[in-house]
Amino acid sequence: MPARLTPALDQLVKCLTYLPGVGPKSATRMALHLLEREQNKGAELAIALSEALTKVGRCQRCNNFSESDLCSICKDTRREEGLLCVVEATTDVIAIEQTAAFRGRYFVLKGHLSPLDGIGPKEIGIDLLKEIMEKQTVKELILATSATVEGEATAHFIGELAQSRNIKVSRLAQGIPMGGELGLLDSGTLSHALEDRKFLFADSGN
Amino acid sequence: MPARLTPALDQLVKCLTYLPGVGPKSATRMALHLLEREQNKGAELAIALSEALTKVGRCQRCNNFSESDLCSICKDTRREEGLLCVVEATTDVIAIEQTAAFRGRYFVLKGHLSPLDGIGPKEIGIDLLKEIMEKQTVKELILATSATVEGEATAHFIGELAQSRNIKVSRLAQGIPMGGELGLLDSGTLSHALEDRKFLFADSGN
Repeated sequence: MPARLTPALDQLVKCLTYLPGVGPKSATRMALHLLEREQNKGAELAIALSEALTKVGRCQRCNNFSESDLCSICKDTRREEGLLCVVEATTDVIAIEQTAAFRGRYFVLKGHLSPLDGIGPKEIGIDLLKEIMEKQTVKELILATSATVEGEATAHFIGELAQSRNIKVSRLAQGIPMGGELGLLDSGTLSHALEDRKFLFADSGN
Repeated sequence: MPARLTPALDQLVKCLTYLPGVGPKSATRMALHLLEREQNKGAELAIALSEALTKVGRCQRCNNFSESDLCSICKDTRREEGLLCVVEATTDVIAIEQTAAFRGRYFVLKGHLSPLDGIGPKEIGIDLLKEIMEKQTVKELILATSATVEGEATAHFIGELAQSRNIKVSRLAQGIPMGGELGLLDSGTLSHALEDRKFLFADSGN
C-alpha cells in the first residue's frame, strides 16, 4: 500500500507502476527522486515518452520498430536479402543484433501461436510472412523462435510453409549454454546437446 | 551498452535510466513494454509526469510536497500544533505517516548538514525552522534525522537551537529493530541497545 502524497504525485506513482518490474515502493522512490532532485530530467523523460509514442511505428516489411516506413535494417543494402531470421518479438532482434553474428534480415512475429488463447497464424502476422516468402528472394529462413512448446510449434508451422515453397529452413542450435556446468543443466537441454553432438573431425562421424 | 533502436526509442531509453535503480537493460525493457503493449498507459505516464512537475511545489510552512501553499498535514487542525518532528526528507514523512503513530506536525529539512560539501544550516533550511521555533507554539521538537554521523550532527545542532529557546527536545530511540537477531546485529546498534535498555518494572531501575 503506497503512502498518500499529493493528488498529482499519487497519480504519477500509479502510472510509474505500469513500468515492468516497478511496484508501489519503487514507484514512490522514483517519483520523489524526480521531483526532489531531477526536475529537468523528469521533464526530459516526459517529452521523450510522448515523442516515442508518437514517432515510433512498425516497419512495413519486417514489423520491427521504425520511425519511417522501412526500418534501418531493411533499408541497409549491405544486409543479405536471401537470409531471413524469424523471431517472436523486437527484443529478440536486439539480442541477435548485439551478437553481430548475423548479416541477414528479420521478420518480427507478433508473439507465438497459442490456439488455446485464440491466437492463430493470422494474429501473429504469418500472412505478411507468406507474402514475403512468395514475392521476395528468400533463400534461407532461420527460425529463431523460443525453445518453448509454443515457440517450437510456431517454428514447425512456419517451417512447413517455407518447405512447401522450396525455401531452406533452419532452426537455432540447442545445447549447453556458454559457461554451463553439466551438473546444473536440466535433462531436456542435456539430451538435446547429446543428440545434436558435433563431430570434431570430418571423418569421425562416418 | 544498450542496443541501438530508433532515435526516439534510444532517447526514451536514455531518459528512463534517469529513474533510480534503472539501468540500460531495464530501461530498454520498459521502453519496449510501453510501446509494444501499453501505449495508452505510456501516454498516461507522460501526462502524469508533466502534471506532477508543474503542480507539485513545497508547503510554505513545513517544506513538504504540496499542491497548494500549505500541505494537507499543516492544514489539518486535528494535528497537535505543539509537537514538531524534524526530518531530513519527504520520504521520511511518508515513512512516519505510515506508522500512524504520530499526530503532530513536520518540518522537512533539505537533507543534513555536511560542512565538507559546503552544506551548512542555511542550505538545509534551518533559518525557516528557527522562525517557526520563535513564532509558533512548539512545545516539543522530535529530532528524527538519520542515525548516521551527518544525521546525528544535524540533530545535535538543531537540538541546541531548541534548547536555547526553552523547547523540549527528543531524539528517536535507537536499538534492536523488530525481528532483529542479536547474532546478526552490528556492535554499534547492540551497544546503543544495551546503553538505552528499558527497565521493565518501575522500581527495578532504582
